[in-house]
Amino acid sequence: MTVDIKLARAYRVIGTSPVRADGYDKVTGKAIYGSDVRISGAIWGSVLRSPHPHARIHTIDTSEAENSPGVAAVITSADLPPIGPEPIDMASAFVDPDHARQNILAGSKVLYRGHPVAAVAALNQMAAAEAVRKIKVEYEPLPAVFDVDAATAPGAPILLEDLEADHLGEPVTGTNIAWHFRYELGDPEAGFDRSSLTIEREFSSPTIHQGYVEPHNATAFWDEDDRIQIWTSTQGLFGVRKQVAGILGVNESRITVYPVEIGGGFGGKTVVYLAPLAALLSRIAGRPVRMVMDRKAIFESTGPAPGGRIAVKIGVDEGGRIQAATASIRLEAGAFPGWAAETASKSVFSCYDIPNARVDGFDILVNKPKANAYRAPGAPQVTFATESVIDEICDEMGWDRIEFRLANASGESTRRVDGPRLGKIGVRETLQAARASDHWNAALTLAESPIRRRGRGVASAFVLFSGRESTATLNLNNDGTVSLVEGSVDINGTRTAIAMQAAEVLGIPLEDVRAVVGHTGAVGSTEISHGSRTTFATGWAACEAAHQLIDEMRRRVADLWEIDVAGIVYESGMFYSGGDRDPSISFRDAAATLGRSGAPISVTASVDPPSPAQGVFSCHIADVEVDIETGKVEILRYTAVQDVGTAIHLAQVEGQIQGAVAQGIGWALNEEYFYDADGRMANHTFQDYRMPTSADLPGIEPIIVEVPNTQHPFGVRGAGEVSIAPPPAAIANAIFAATGIRLRELPMKPGRVLAALQNGVRT
Amino acid sequence: MTVDIKLARAYRVIGTSPVRADGYDKVTGKAIYGSDVRISGAIWGSVLRSPHPHARIHTIDTSEAENSPGVAAVITSADLPPIGPEPIDMASAFVDPDHARQNILAGSKVLYRGHPVAAVAALNQMAAAEAVRKIKVEYEPLPAVFDVDAATAPGAPILLEDLEADHLGEPVTGTNIAWHFRYELGDPEAGFDRSSLTIEREFSSPTIHQGYVEPHNATAFWDEDDRIQIWTSTQGLFGVRKQVAGILGVNESRITVYPVEIGGGFGGKTVVYLAPLAALLSRIAGRPVRMVMDRKAIFESTGPAPGGRIAVKIGVDEGGRIQAATASIRLEAGAFPGWAAETASKSVFSCYDIPNARVDGFDILVNKPKANAYRAPGAPQVTFATESVIDEICDEMGWDRIEFRLANASGESTRRVDGPRLGKIGVRETLQAARASDHWNAALTLAESPIRRRGRGVASAFVLFSGRESTATLNLNNDGTVSLVEGSVDINGTRTAIAMQAAEVLGIPLEDVRAVVGHTGAVGSTEISHGSRTTFATGWAACEAAHQLIDEMRRRVADLWEIDVAGIVYESGMFYSGGDRDPSISFRDAAATLGRSGAPISVTASVDPPSPAQGVFSCHIADVEVDIETGKVEILRYTAVQDVGTAIHLAQVEGQIQGAVAQGIGWALNEEYFYDADGRMANHTFQDYRMPTSADLPGIEPIIVEVPNTQHPFGVRGAGEVSIAPPPAAIANAIFAATGIRLRELPMKPGRVLAALQNGVRT
Repeated sequence: MTVDIKLARAYRVIGTSPVRADGYDKVTGKAIYGSDVRISGAIWGSVLRSPHPHARIHTIDTSEAENSPGVAAVITSADLPPIGPEPIDMASAFVDPDHARQNILAGSKVLYRGHPVAAVAALNQMAAAEAVRKIKVEYEPLPAVFDVDAATAPGAPILLEDLEADHLGEPVTGTNIAWHFRYELGDPEAGFDRSSLTIEREFSSPTIHQGYVEPHNATAFWDEDDRIQIWTSTQGLFGVRKQVAGILGVNESRITVYPVEIGGGFGGKTVVYLAPLAALLSRIAGRPVRMVMDRKAIFESTGPAPGGRIAVKIGVDEGGRIQAATASIRLEAGAFPGWAAETASKSVFSCYDIPNARVDGFDILVNKPKANAYRAPGAPQVTFATESVIDEICDEMGWDRIEFRLANASGESTRRVDGPRLGKIGVRETLQAARASDHWNAALTLAESPIRRRGRGVASAFVLFSGRESTATLNLNNDGTVSLVEGSVDINGTRTAIAMQAAEVLGIPLEDVRAVVGHTGAVGSTEISHGSRTTFATGWAACEAAHQLIDEMRRRVADLWEIDVAGIVYESGMFYSGGDRDPSISFRDAAATLGRSGAPISVTASVDPPSPAQGVFSCHIADVEVDIETGKVEILRYTAVQDVGTAIHLAQVEGQIQGAVAQGIGWALNEEYFYDADGRMANHTFQDYRMPTSADLPGIEPIIVEVPNTQHPFGVRGAGEVSIAPPPAAIANAIFAATGIRLRELPMKPGRVLAALQNGVRT
Repeated sequence: MTVDIKLARAYRVIGTSPVRADGYDKVTGKAIYGSDVRISGAIWGSVLRSPHPHARIHTIDTSEAENSPGVAAVITSADLPPIGPEPIDMASAFVDPDHARQNILAGSKVLYRGHPVAAVAALNQMAAAEAVRKIKVEYEPLPAVFDVDAATAPGAPILLEDLEADHLGEPVTGTNIAWHFRYELGDPEAGFDRSSLTIEREFSSPTIHQGYVEPHNATAFWDEDDRIQIWTSTQGLFGVRKQVAGILGVNESRITVYPVEIGGGFGGKTVVYLAPLAALLSRIAGRPVRMVMDRKAIFESTGPAPGGRIAVKIGVDEGGRIQAATASIRLEAGAFPGWAAETASKSVFSCYDIPNARVDGFDILVNKPKANAYRAPGAPQVTFATESVIDEICDEMGWDRIEFRLANASGESTRRVDGPRLGKIGVRETLQAARASDHWNAALTLAESPIRRRGRGVASAFVLFSGRESTATLNLNNDGTVSLVEGSVDINGTRTAIAMQAAEVLGIPLEDVRAVVGHTGAVGSTEISHGSRTTFATGWAACEAAHQLIDEMRRRVADLWEIDVAGIVYESGMFYSGGDRDPSISFRDAAATLGRSGAPISVTASVDPPSPAQGVFSCHIADVEVDIETGKVEILRYTAVQDVGTAIHLAQVEGQIQGAVAQGIGWALNEEYFYDADGRMANHTFQDYRMPTSADLPGIEPIIVEVPNTQHPFGVRGAGEVSIAPPPAAIANAIFAATGIRLRELPMKPGRVLAALQNGVRT
């Protein structure tokens, strides 16, 4: 369902839902994913991982492993090549390249359970496992910290003794707070003074995982000519190239990363784990090395979404206008510093036009794997906090939930707390669409059983999306089709969404645009697919290339007709000479003619758009039913209204919204890293790590609002992420509506709901 | 050894001999050739070939074969999809696309032994062979013709009954002369009248083969989504795409052809044989199909160099100036019409400035496989004729062989017999270099044995080279290296010769340019590598792309320095602001800086140069020793002087000259299709088809003359072919010098030499 806020645009290809370019191969099982890659002569690589969450490494004895049958290579951090004097641009979750190296293979300390300590390449998986068992490591266990409170308590064990942290611009050592930064706008204290109602609450969110089905994998071959070939499931071929080059201290151009299909990433496949190990093992073994993680390693060693604690304080005047807001966002960095709190800070208040605000962000080291991006990084955690407080304010003041949000909605000139003005964004339009929706206007009926209580909740969210560099090449074929070469791996049908933009500009059918992903030696540099940037930025490059192609064809047609190029019009798939539109030639006929009468027509366009300040906005409505005897929460109905800018592939955009909501519901109700009494993750299988299945989810109704992005040729916004953020708050608010209980810890699992009901935690 | 005719050019990269990009993989055995390709699930395809040189097919019964164990598909010509109404651009040896289809799978007739009649795909090679044996074909054998005389004799059996032949513009049916054309210049009869000496002779050349080591092969997968993927050893990815599309009547854009290494082509891998069969079998079998020819099939079914008879008449006035020349060039088309005589006609007289000339070319159908290109197609046959007659004239008139050629040498304004003026060409420079060479100035000593006679011969040759479409893309990497993507498969180190031209323009080391070959979906259309066009035309595209890259970098540097782009100079690897050359930035530093401060830098250039009229010229000197008791001819010393325009990769150019001479010597002395009494080829193995080995060859001394081509940015001429043409004539002339015997039939094998000596054939 599309709500036409703006006048309907008469696009030909854009806004339809064609079969995806990746669909046939994925449906028939023909698609080659990273772990399907079989390179002739490849042997198996395995990793020895730390059993301790925090320990000093005294010695590593690999001699017995090296002599184990079938072993071709054993490496530890001592085998990492020295890195050159030039700075390494890691462009990843790591702010320090040396930390990226330590994460690949631990140096003097292990910092989390699962931290790689050594790796082995052997003729087969059994031989590799046997050799891994024969590596002797002498550890000195150290006390560990697992949450932001413990990590910042006095006397807490320090993870990175050498770290010079930045605390509001001042260097600090001997701390686990790797970064404390502050954004401030106006005078928050004065704002609170003007408020008639101020509410401050603290919320917590657990460590959770992206839960992609396909495990991390890498096959690498480092040959005697020092060329490194890599096949790996990743969100970014050039990111892998850059990171492996940085970690191993080799020239980027010696590395070729080949595209394969990816079985889910959601932000978690933006950082390399196995590729540098496989490459290094391959150099020693002289053969290709293939590595695939098991699920336990994925949970224990790869970047989860950070847990943490968020305190939010909001003050409202008598007229219901928010006068001030502050937040303290303390997120788990994991073992090495990152930037999780930074993106969270840009989302926390951006739905609202708040004149006075302050956010303190903290990136806090804990003995867990280094946190990584997960769909709308940081936004679910802070949205849970802000939107729960907003709901409480509405409850206290008797405001309608949507009217209050409309009264305080961000507008074009609203400043984000970190400074930039938002510009054109569909906040009001989205809220109006929610207010007009079937769901909002349908009465919530009573449950059939008296032990089941129903309630409706609302929550909004804002998240930024990324621009950055992308390249697209178009080659015109003689039969009137066009080959599109792009550098973005197809993470979710993006080949199609990009080809659609080219087809729209070219005025030809989508099936005449054949999109392929080039390897890193065959296409221009393209940033990792993160921050919903691909349809936006790589699509933009494809638009630019398509315009170049038409221009070149106009020049050739002009030569053919021996008239000035200014007299050639291209419209609806036909080239005309101006005026009387005679002669004319179709795109297809022109391709056949021009291809035989001159140089091939081949164009390349690169773009590097800034990340728009406007971001993307959504408002969700959830109806829940709470079983007050078991604490189980069932979602009865769920509607997600989202401004997507312009929907390129309608069904894909709807699928992105539904998928994001499903993950948000998992975050709200079930998912968490559950630790046993010994501090070990107890639920490191998909059986026990309870992601929602289709049986746990209602139909999720997407309502697409199109407020075109003024900073993209087709108005695209990055639409894939924001809808993961509202579900925890929308569901918490619905639980409150059903039961009068406010839950401020995620997940809102039955035991926690039951305890709250029994303890009567009402505000 | 380089003779500097022009002032030496101070190139940095061009003219050196770096390690080839393909060298490491080929030397270590890592290179993947077409028949090394293993696609998961592939099954084996085999071909049933005709045992008759000429027969009508009454019925083909495949039922038993279809039920044979492990058989997945059986096809005959009845299974070829209908072709659409649109004309097919075959761009191959076939002038009629329907003939290309008939060559793939015979229709109502077989036209040569080895002509494919049916094909089978089965689980393995044995099962396929078994099924092939079970196909029952009812043939009606027809009389066959194997040479141009028999084919044109009255009452000869007609191969293509429906053919409408073109005889000097008139349509003719019921003939095996598929094409008779004429080129004429001036008034030959008047020229002969002015001549004081006129010599006319006829020469013959056998059918011979290119003799590439790697067999023809193809792996194809036609999937249910009608996408066709092809891996095959070929001289042109886009040629395979075009031909398979034309033969199978499918849209080009449904076909992707992937680059693999090629183990020799020499013109013989410009036409498809197995790829359409593998694709068609795959469509029926639902699995990839792999096919590899055996050597017998290669000899009997794939395009050889045409045999034929050439009559040449040359008239010279008393001053030694050639006044007139005529030629009748009758070459074997094989089973289907082609163009062999046409290229021969452009070579036959172009070494000389002849005011009056006429050439009659005949393309004559015989019951042999369709002829195909072989290095300098047609030139060895006609050069043998012309240069033997020239030698006879010199002998009669007492002229020095080189002085006579210099006195009659072509110049810039000389017209070729087919019309165009030659333009700048190094004919005189090459002859002068031959005259100045060590070899020419060294006396020929007597043989030690009285039964061995020594002689020296000279011969010159001219051949055209091709232009046509090529595309190159350059992607700038942040580390200052450049990825070069090209559409020309690397047939003989061409990746390096192309990368060298880019590196020269870019002012960076060659090792910083990484060349890869793109598949047909990933790079712009590029013509087949034939006619020595690749270093010329694809190199030109790389030059153009390199200039574009520098221009784009100049624009970005200008932005960086906030000055006008007109003020930015790029020189010797540095960008300067004009005037005081401050600031400045190196290419590498600029790449690092610009790559982080804007869109990626990626450029594509396409070119479509016409084939230059100038061609390329060589003059060879051969010393031989003839054993008059056995007739064996030994080459004592061989020098090949060639104008190469500008030598890009010096060692590769030398290697091309040496390789061409080696093949020319084989043509001169040993190679031929030898038929037994039943008309079957008796020498279809490399054991019996006597190509020269290193033991048969002298050291071959190349002398490189550089007269830069004025129609290429670096002066490149296509240097790979012409030196195959002089050896038969140079050796025949040397045999005459040694023995007084003139041989006019190739090969000059011992038996033939002995017979001539015994018969005393002196003129």
